[in-house]
Amino acid sequence: MNIIKGNVTTPKGFKAIGNFVGLKKEKKDLAIILSDTECTASGCFTQNIVKAAPVLWDIERVKKEKNKIKAVVVNSGNANACTGTKGMKDADTTAEVLANLSGCKKENILVASTGVIGVNLSMDTLINGIKSTYPLLSDSYESGVLAAEAIMTTDTFAKTVCVEIEISGKKITIGGMAKGSGMINPNMATMLCFITTDAKISKEMLDKALYECIPDTFNMICVDGDTSTNDTVLVLANGLAENDEITEENSDYKTFSDALFYINKTLAISCAKDGEGATKLMEVNVTGAKTKSDARKIANSVVSSNLFKAALFGEDANWGRVLCSMGYSGVNFNPSEVTIVFKSHGGEILLMDNGTPIVFDEELASHILKEHDIFIDIKLKEGSETATAWGCDLTYDYVKINGDYRS
Amino acid sequence: MNIIKGNVTTPKGFKAIGNFVGLKKEKKDLAIILSDTECTASGCFTQNIVKAAPVLWDIERVKKEKNKIKAVVVNSGNANACTGTKGMKDADTTAEVLANLSGCKKENILVASTGVIGVNLSMDTLINGIKSTYPLLSDSYESGVLAAEAIMTTDTFAKTVCVEIEISGKKITIGGMAKGSGMINPNMATMLCFITTDAKISKEMLDKALYECIPDTFNMICVDGDTSTNDTVLVLANGLAENDEITEENSDYKTFSDALFYINKTLAISCAKDGEGATKLMEVNVTGAKTKSDARKIANSVVSSNLFKAALFGEDANWGRVLCSMGYSGVNFNPSEVTIVFKSHGGEILLMDNGTPIVFDEELASHILKEHDIFIDIKLKEGSETATAWGCDLTYDYVKINGDYRS
Repeated sequence: MNIIKGNVTTPKGFKAIGNFVGLKKEKKDLAIILSDTECTASGCFTQNIVKAAPVLWDIERVKKEKNKIKAVVVNSGNANACTGTKGMKDADTTAEVLANLSGCKKENILVASTGVIGVNLSMDTLINGIKSTYPLLSDSYESGVLAAEAIMTTDTFAKTVCVEIEISGKKITIGGMAKGSGMINPNMATMLCFITTDAKISKEMLDKALYECIPDTFNMICVDGDTSTNDTVLVLANGLAENDEITEENSDYKTFSDALFYINKTLAISCAKDGEGATKLMEVNVTGAKTKSDARKIANSVVSSNLFKAALFGEDANWGRVLCSMGYSGVNFNPSEVTIVFKSHGGEILLMDNGTPIVFDEELASHILKEHDIFIDIKLKEGSETATAWGCDLTYDYVKINGDYRS
Repeated sequence: MNIIKGNVTTPKGFKAIGNFVGLKKEKKDLAIILSDTECTASGCFTQNIVKAAPVLWDIERVKKEKNKIKAVVVNSGNANACTGTKGMKDADTTAEVLANLSGCKKENILVASTGVIGVNLSMDTLINGIKSTYPLLSDSYESGVLAAEAIMTTDTFAKTVCVEIEISGKKITIGGMAKGSGMINPNMATMLCFITTDAKISKEMLDKALYECIPDTFNMICVDGDTSTNDTVLVLANGLAENDEITEENSDYKTFSDALFYINKTLAISCAKDGEGATKLMEVNVTGAKTKSDARKIANSVVSSNLFKAALFGEDANWGRVLCSMGYSGVNFNPSEVTIVFKSHGGEILLMDNGTPIVFDEELASHILKEHDIFIDIKLKEGSETATAWGCDLTYDYVKINGDYRS
């Protein structure tokens, strides 16, 4: 697998664009991805029972084996969530407008939204915006960057990634873009992720590859513990690489799914790193858990603890809050066999050794916690399962950003 | 039931005191409650599997039907949590010191702690502190206030309450004090609560009355979603009111348990109101839920949402975050039948009516949200169960307080 410079326009036959159409005050607010040929598509969506209208639209579209996808339209000004029956009608209309432009049925269009909840979309603005943006679609690298920028809300940087692999002698490219920021929680987030690939792969195998990625990538990040109404990860595969179609779990499948995992993991970590107001990225590594589920629960509990997140912001080695948050994770383990180590590029420090607190060098701890990337290693003695979760610190800016998000 | 001025020293035969003994830098850090006669005792404790040493000590003491309690000693400088085997020994020694002073066995002493996690207690300081504080014990109102002040950590005010009831012609008094602040979450908190009463009541009935209170009082408050290692609610009943002993669920039991519920609820709301950095108290009322458990889960999910808590701080009527947090509560309900109203002493405003978002007057919303006490009414159409939860806003000061708690 080669990591290359690229994004959603890099795989063969994909165009994209990002534009400002007036849903936000001044920033880009509309993105379109279009494939030259119809795509096999797969999606993962929020577990929140309050699902935004575009999520309900997409679930219907991607669950049908035979339904192919031509394009995706994303607006980042209004989530179209908690918008009643009008919201569903607006998602339908949005799909129809892009379908008419791209010469397909509305069922071949996917729709995504993020932004304020509970306010109906300005449909005139959106419809005119789609019409004026469509002619700008291009397969250039720059267009892919514009699309990645246009899906941002409070994100501070555009998140893209691209890799190349080889299957049956053909070069296959997978590109992706994501937006995260607030409402990021285990089990997805106000997180939108769009992945394009020219791989030829059956619907069944594409679904399998995507579903296998999510539990250890997007479900292992946390910014604030709120699970959004709009979380969406979509993968479009148009087959233009002309590889032998992947239809079973063979070595080709493994090559593809490993690459897809890398794409998802990279974008997920970018979302954690760019959490609203974040000044630090935290990676929590749990080893020695009895089950995979236990390992994931413990790692997620630590990255989600407001108290520990605030301590991290304060660069305070308050490891007791790590053990405390492990304790309310719902997992049964022996606290007197826990070992906790904090690491960064500044060094590492043992804080609890087999249940015994270690009197530690505060100066060294402070030196380690001054770094941006902080690694929390947690060793249990319950078994051999592992998991990693990513999160960020809780800062003044998080409160500021979310205190007046609508204004 | 009469609400009277009073605290833990108001019931007959109870003395208390609060003092500064050097565990903190300058504030009062040690409290003792002593009964003239041995008490029937009941306790509820944290559900965190990492339990502080004093919690483990108390659980053993109160679970035994026959074990009577003479006194409680509380320090608010050091939680004695995550402190390994030395922590257990220190809890034992603490009990022994007070037992020797008060002429009972160490098994008749309860111990509670709050403060920093993962650091061993300065036992010399604590032992000398108990010895110098013991002679100051008094049954005066002021001593009760000093005790309530001495259990505070980042609390901004002392929390006390007292009521009088009559049972079999005898006046019975119940007094209580609590500390809350951070680490407050559904299923208890770094929350300590001590309740004294001169009621004569069997161990079985005292346990029942306490356990029945907790699910709708201390388990329904949230400050930051972290469940502490040290949560403790203790009730001591010394029987000096000389009422006919309450030994079954008759009308006397009902009178007593209603009063105990009031004590718990009042102290729980005080803890939510005084959440770390809080500028507002939020009360979430859920009606029309299918089951009691559903109603509690939804109410707790809303008071725990960081996004909504931040919106409340910003006085932003972002009701979409209310519906969103209901949606990830784990409860199944029909979002298109939900009604949401925000209220305060400034008025009330309908935001979602039967699943339809209402275009509302931003000026009125802003006027309502400027108040300190905000009520969120959520109506479902799933059944007839109700629940209320209390929480606070998420503020810059929460981050500040928890960013450098240890320093």
